[in-house]
Amino acid sequence: MRPSKRQPDEMRAVSFERGVSKHAEGSCLVRFGDTHVLCTASLEEKVPAWLRNSGKGWITAEYGMLPRATGERTRREAASGKQSGRTLEIQRLVGRSLRAVVDLTALGELQITVDCDVLQADGGTRTAAITGGFVALYDCLAWMQARQMITIDRVLKDHVAAVSCGICEGVPVLDLDYAEDSAAGTDANFVMTGSGGIVEIQGTAEGAPFSEEEFQALLALARKGIARLIELQKMAVL
Amino acid sequence: MRPSKRQPDEMRAVSFERGVSKHAEGSCLVRFGDTHVLCTASLEEKVPAWLRNSGKGWITAEYGMLPRATGERTRREAASGKQSGRTLEIQRLVGRSLRAVVDLTALGELQITVDCDVLQADGGTRTAAITGGFVALYDCLAWMQARQMITIDRVLKDHVAAVSCGICEGVPVLDLDYAEDSAAGTDANFVMTGSGGIVEIQGTAEGAPFSEEEFQALLALARKGIARLIELQKMAVL
Amino acid sequence: MRPSKRQPDEMRAVSFERGVSKHAEGSCLVRFGDTHVLCTASLEEKVPAWLRNSGKGWITAEYGMLPRATGERTRREAASGKQSGRTLEIQRLVGRSLRAVVDLTALGELQITVDCDVLQADGGTRTAAITGGFVALYDCLAWMQARQMITIDRVLKDHVAAVSCGICEGVPVLDLDYAEDSAAGTDANFVMTGSGGIVEIQGTAEGAPFSEEEFQALLALARKGIARLIELQKMAVL
Amino acid sequence: MRPSKRQPDEMRAVSFERGVSKHAEGSCLVRFGDTHVLCTASLEEKVPAWLRNSGKGWITAEYGMLPRATGERTRREAASGKQSGRTLEIQRLVGRSLRAVVDLTALGELQITVDCDVLQADGGTRTAAITGGFVALYDCLAWMQARQMITIDRVLKDHVAAVSCGICEGVPVLDLDYAEDSAAGTDANFVMTGSGGIVEIQGTAEGAPFSEEEFQALLALARKGIARLIELQKMAVL
Amino acid sequence: MRPSKRQPDEMRAVSFERGVSKHAEGSCLVRFGDTHVLCTASLEEKVPAWLRNSGKGWITAEYGMLPRATGERTRREAASGKQSGRTLEIQRLVGRSLRAVVDLTALGELQITVDCDVLQADGGTRTAAITGGFVALYDCLAWMQARQMITIDRVLKDHVAAVSCGICEGVPVLDLDYAEDSAAGTDANFVMTGSGGIVEIQGTAEGAPFSEEEFQALLALARKGIARLIELQKMAVL
Amino acid sequence: MRPSKRQPDEMRAVSFERGVSKHAEGSCLVRFGDTHVLCTASLEEKVPAWLRNSGKGWITAEYGMLPRATGERTRREAASGKQSGRTLEIQRLVGRSLRAVVDLTALGELQITVDCDVLQADGGTRTAAITGGFVALYDCLAWMQARQMITIDRVLKDHVAAVSCGICEGVPVLDLDYAEDSAAGTDANFVMTGSGGIVEIQGTAEGAPFSEEEFQALLALARKGIARLIELQKMAVL
Repeated sequence: MRPSKRQPDEMRAVSFERGVSKHAEGSCLVRFGDTHVLCTASLEEKVPAWLRNSGKGWITAEYGMLPRATGERTRREAASGKQSGRTLEIQRLVGRSLRAVVDLTALGELQITVDCDVLQADGGTRTAAITGGFVALYDCLAWMQARQMITIDRVLKDHVAAVSCGICEGVPVLDLDYAEDSAAGTDANFVMTGSGGIVEIQGTAEGAPFSEEEFQALLALARKGIARLIELQKMAVL
Repeated sequence: MRPSKRQPDEMRAVSFERGVSKHAEGSCLVRFGDTHVLCTASLEEKVPAWLRNSGKGWITAEYGMLPRATGERTRREAASGKQSGRTLEIQRLVGRSLRAVVDLTALGELQITVDCDVLQADGGTRTAAITGGFVALYDCLAWMQARQMITIDRVLKDHVAAVSCGICEGVPVLDLDYAEDSAAGTDANFVMTGSGGIVEIQGTAEGAPFSEEEFQALLALARKGIARLIELQKMAVL
Repeated sequence: MRPSKRQPDEMRAVSFERGVSKHAEGSCLVRFGDTHVLCTASLEEKVPAWLRNSGKGWITAEYGMLPRATGERTRREAASGKQSGRTLEIQRLVGRSLRAVVDLTALGELQITVDCDVLQADGGTRTAAITGGFVALYDCLAWMQARQMITIDRVLKDHVAAVSCGICEGVPVLDLDYAEDSAAGTDANFVMTGSGGIVEIQGTAEGAPFSEEEFQALLALARKGIARLIELQKMAVL
Repeated sequence: MRPSKRQPDEMRAVSFERGVSKHAEGSCLVRFGDTHVLCTASLEEKVPAWLRNSGKGWITAEYGMLPRATGERTRREAASGKQSGRTLEIQRLVGRSLRAVVDLTALGELQITVDCDVLQADGGTRTAAITGGFVALYDCLAWMQARQMITIDRVLKDHVAAVSCGICEGVPVLDLDYAEDSAAGTDANFVMTGSGGIVEIQGTAEGAPFSEEEFQALLALARKGIARLIELQKMAVL
Repeated sequence: MRPSKRQPDEMRAVSFERGVSKHAEGSCLVRFGDTHVLCTASLEEKVPAWLRNSGKGWITAEYGMLPRATGERTRREAASGKQSGRTLEIQRLVGRSLRAVVDLTALGELQITVDCDVLQADGGTRTAAITGGFVALYDCLAWMQARQMITIDRVLKDHVAAVSCGICEGVPVLDLDYAEDSAAGTDANFVMTGSGGIVEIQGTAEGAPFSEEEFQALLALARKGIARLIELQKMAVL
Repeated sequence: MRPSKRQPDEMRAVSFERGVSKHAEGSCLVRFGDTHVLCTASLEEKVPAWLRNSGKGWITAEYGMLPRATGERTRREAASGKQSGRTLEIQRLVGRSLRAVVDLTALGELQITVDCDVLQADGGTRTAAITGGFVALYDCLAWMQARQMITIDRVLKDHVAAVSCGICEGVPVLDLDYAEDSAAGTDANFVMTGSGGIVEIQGTAEGAPFSEEEFQALLALARKGIARLIELQKMAVL
C-alpha cells in the first residue's frame, strides 16, 4: 500500500489553473497533489547572442523554490549567491523539454522564458514544472496569435508532459510524492509528447542498481501517466 | 480622480488567506488589491551567533519577488548571484518592523524567519509584506503555543501593520498602486502598531521636495489606513 | 546630560575641507566631530544605459567605510565580495538626496559620481556624507562652469544637507554621535533643502515605538540643525 | 558509415594508464579515443557534515575541463567565478555512479574525492570520467588495503562503467565522438555495473523525440559496450 | 631632467603623520609626495586557523584604493565583487614585508592587521604602504607594550621600508612618481631592513629587457633611498 | 647535499613534449622533474577592448592547478568561485614574460592565450609554465606562419625562460623542488631572454633577509640555468 493509499498506477490529483498572473503573457498554477508550481511565460524581444539575426527564436526556462516550499526551510538561493546544481539541472531539463515541441523558426526571433517557481513541494516538482510550463507556454503563444504575431499550429508541434516513477518496496509506482521519493530505491523521470515520442528519460538507482525489467515497468507506467496528463492539458487549454 | 477610482483615503481591497502552506508553522497569502505576497514563518532551533547562550530569540525576514511578478520580467536574483540593494533594504525593514512588537526574551532562544515572496506586484509590496508577515508570524506563535513552547501574549506585545501614502497630482492619497507609485512626487511608507505607536517612517521626495504640511497629511492618512489594516488583521487571526 | 556634554539642540563641530584631492573635479573632507568622510565628485562622459540619448545626465553616489574606521575592525567589503545591505541603503540615499537639488537636463548627458568614504566613524556617517557630498558636487559643477560646460545656477536648484536626531533617555537630541546612537530608543535621519523642503525622512524605533509628538520634536530639531549646516555649506563654497 | 569509420557497435580504443600521479592515492589517465580524462582519487579524513559520527564514509566527484580541451577555447570556470550547470550536472552523475558500487559503511568515516579533469575532449567525457574514475577509486582502495585500513572486497560491491549511445542519421551507434555527438538526433548515457544492473540512464532527444524501439536499441548497444569496458577495467586493475 | 625636476637619486618629500585614527591601536598617514596612504594597525585576539594553539601570532595586510585616488575614477572593488590581481599581489607583499621583521612567537597568539588604503595615488603606493605600514605597526606594538602585553624589542627585530626605482629615458632614477612610472622601461620595487638585509626584490621590464648593470644601478639607488626612509621612520617613532 | 642529490648548480631533468593537444594551435607538456605543466596556446580573432582598432595584438596567460597536483588535495578554484591571489600573480607574471619577447604590432590584431595547467606539482610551477609556455607560443606562431598569417622572425624577438633559485641551508642552489622550496630561507624567480636580458626578478626572504652577496650568487646560478633551458627550448623547436 502506498503512503497516499493510491494504486501503483494512480496519479495524484492534477489541476491547471490558468491566467493566474496579471502581468505574464501566459501563466498556470499547476498542482500535482500537494506539489504546487507557479509557471509564467514571458515574451521578450531578444534572443541569446548566438541566435541574433538567425530568424530563429528561443524558449528557455528558470526554476526556483520558495525557501519554505519544503518541510525544512531551505536557504534562499538569491541569498547564498548561486543556484545549486540541482536547480541548474532542472531548469535545463525544463527548457529542453519545452523546446522539443516548438518550431523555433516559426516562432521568429523572439524569446519566451518560462519561470517555474515551486510554492509548495511534495515530490515531482520538475515533472509538474514541465507539465504546467507547457500550459503557460501555450497561453503565451495564444496571446501572440491573438495579436497576429504567430500561428500556434505552426509553432507548437505537439504536447509535452512529464511524470516520475519509482520502485518503492519492490513495486513500480507512478507519480511519487515526497514520502515515496525519499524511500524509493529507483527513481526515474520521463518526458514524452502527445504522440508518444520520448523526449527525455532520466533513471537513477538511489540504492541498488535496477534491472532492465524494472526499468521497462517504469517506462510502461510513465507512458500511461503522461497520456493522462496530456488529456488533462488538452482539457485545460481548450 | 485616482486611476483606480478610489477616494484619496480609500485603501485597496485587503485580504489575508491563512494556512496556505502545508509545511510552514505559520503562513499567509496577503492581497492588497493586485499585490499578492506569500508570507511564511519558519521556526528554527538556532539563533544568530551573537545571540547564542543569551536566552533571547530572533525574528528575521527575507524578501523576494518572482521574476514575472512585475509588468516586465525582472532578472532572477538567484541567477544574477546577488540580492539587489532594494531587496536588502526591504527585508531589513520587514525584520525590524516585526521585531518591534516581539519580546525576544519571552520567545526564548529560537529563530523565526518570515519569508515574504511577491507572487504579483502592483505597488506597495513592502507594506503588504509587513502586514501579512505579521499574520504569518502570529500563526507561527499560535503553533508554538499549541505545543506549550510559549505564551503568545507574553511574546507578542502588539499588532503591527504598514501602508504607503503619496502625493499624486498634488493630492495626498492612501495606499498607492503601481500606476500612482510611478507618478507620485512624494512617496512615504509608515509602519505603526495597534496602539498607534510609530515603528518606522520613510518619506522620499521623488521629484520636488515636500513641505511639512504635506508630510503631516500623509501621516494622518497612514494613521487611518493602518488602523483599518489592524482591524482586518484582528478579524483574520481571531 | 549628553555623553559629549552638548546641549540637546547642539551639533558637533562641523567643518568642510575643500580641494583635498589632486585628481577629483570636486572634493571635500567633511567632519562632524570625530566622523570624517572623504567625498570626491568625479565627472564622467557616460550615463546609465536607460538615459542614453535622453539629453539628461545623472548623479550617483557610492559609500564605503575603511575597515578600521570603526571601534572594532570591520571586514573589508572588497574582500568579502559584496557590499552589505547597509552600504547599499546608504549610497542609494546619498544619490537620491543629491539628485533632489539637481536639474539633470541642465547638466546634460554626463554623470557625476560622488564617492563618500568614511575615514573615521563616530555616528552620523550618512548625514555627513550627504552634507559633504553636496560640497564636493558643488565644486565639481564649479569646475565645469569654469570650462563653460554648464551654468551652476541652472544645474543646482538648491542646497541640501542632512542630520540625524534621536531620543536618548527620553530627551530629543540633535546630531547623535556613536555613543548616543547605540543607546537611542529612536533614531531618525532628515534630509532637507536650503529653502526648507523635505527630501527624505527616515525614522526608526530601535526599541519601543515612538509617538507622533516625539517625532515632531525630532523634526523641529532637524530643521534647526540643517539650517545651520546649510549656512556652513554656504560659507564653505563662497 | 560513421565519421570515424567504426561499425555501429564498435567503441573507440579505450585505455587506462594507472599511477599517473605522484601524489594521489589512486590515479588513472583514461582515453576513449581522443577523449583523455585525468582521474585522481584523494583520500581525506573528513566527511560531509551530515555524516559526522555516523560511521559512514563518502565518495564524491568533481569535474573540470581545461580551457583548450575543446575545439574552441572555453572560458576557464575559475575565472568566470562559477561552475556551469553542465559541470555540476556531470560531477553529480559521476559521484552517484561511483557510490552505487561502494558500501559506505565498510569504507568507514573517510571521504574519497575523485577529480576528473578533461585534458582533451572529443565527446563522451562524462562516460570516460565514470569509467576511469572507477579505476582511480579502485587504486585508492588498494592503497588503503595495503595499509590495513579496509578490505577492498567489503567496500567495493561491483565494477561500474558508462558509455554513450545515440542515433546518427537514423542508425543507433555506440560511443559517440564529438562529430557524431553534435549531429546526433538522440543522445543517451548509460551507467551499469559488472553484474548488469543499471545505475543511471539519461536519454535526451536533441531534435525530434525518439521512439521506444530506438531507445531499446540504444540500451542493447550500451549493454554490449559496458560489458567490454568492464572487461578492460578488470584487465587494468589485475 | 625628471618631470618633477628631482635629481636621479632624489626622493619625493616623505612624511609620516601618526595617530590619525581615533580607533586603531596604531595608525599613520604616510605621504610620498602626492601619494597618500592611510595605514592602520588593528589588534585582534584571533589568529588564522593554521596557527591556533601554536603560541605564534600573525601579521597580515590588506590594501585598497579609494575609487578616485587615481586620475580617472577606478571601479570600487566592493562593487565589482572582487579584489583585483594587483590588489591581492600588493597586500601579500605588504604582509610578507612586515612579517620579515617580526618575531611571531614573541608576539604571542594575536593577530595584527595592517590596512593600507590609498587616499591619493601618484605612483609608488605599495612602497609607501610598506614604509607607512611599518610605522602603524610600530605604534600598535607600542600600544601593546604600554599595556604590558609584549616587549617591543623582542617582537620587532628591525625596521623595514620600501622604495621603487626605474629606468626613465635611459637614466636610473629613485622613487618614481606616476608620470615616470607610466613611461619607465624598467620598474623595480625593493624592500630592505634597517640593517641592510634584502626582504624582497621585484624587477620588471615593461618594454625591453634590462641588463645586469642596469639592475645593479637600481639596487644601489634603492639602498640609498631605503636608508633615508628608515632614518625618517626612526625620527617619526622616537 | 640536496634532497634530490643534485649539485647546487644542477637542474632537474627538463623535457618538452610538443603537440600534445589535438585542438590547440600550439601545445607543450613541460616537465621540470616531477613538475608537469600542460601549456596550450590558443589563437583568437579578438583583442582586449583597449587594443581594438590599434592594429596591435595581445598575448595573455592563465594558470591553474589540478586539485590533486599537490601533496594534499587543494580546493578547486572553480568550486570556491575565485582564483587565489597566488594564481592571479602567477598568470600575470607568465603573460608579462611572454609579451617581453613578442612584437605585438607584428602579430597584428589577434590574441594568443597561453593556458598553463599544472598536472603535477613539485616546486617551480611558475618557471616551468613560462619556459614551456614559450614553446607552446612558438608552435602557435609556427602554425600561423604555415598559414601565411605572420612571419615568426618578425613577431618573436627572442627566447624567454625562467628558473627559481634559493638558499637552502646556507647554500645557493638552482631549480628548487618542493622539498627545497618549503625549507628555503630565500627564494627567487628569474626570467631572462636568450640574449641574456633580464625580464623579471622576484626575490623573497621567507625567513631572515638576505644579503646582496647572496642575491648575486642566485643571479649567477639563474643565468646559468636559463642559458641551459634556452638551449633545450631551441632543440625542442628546431
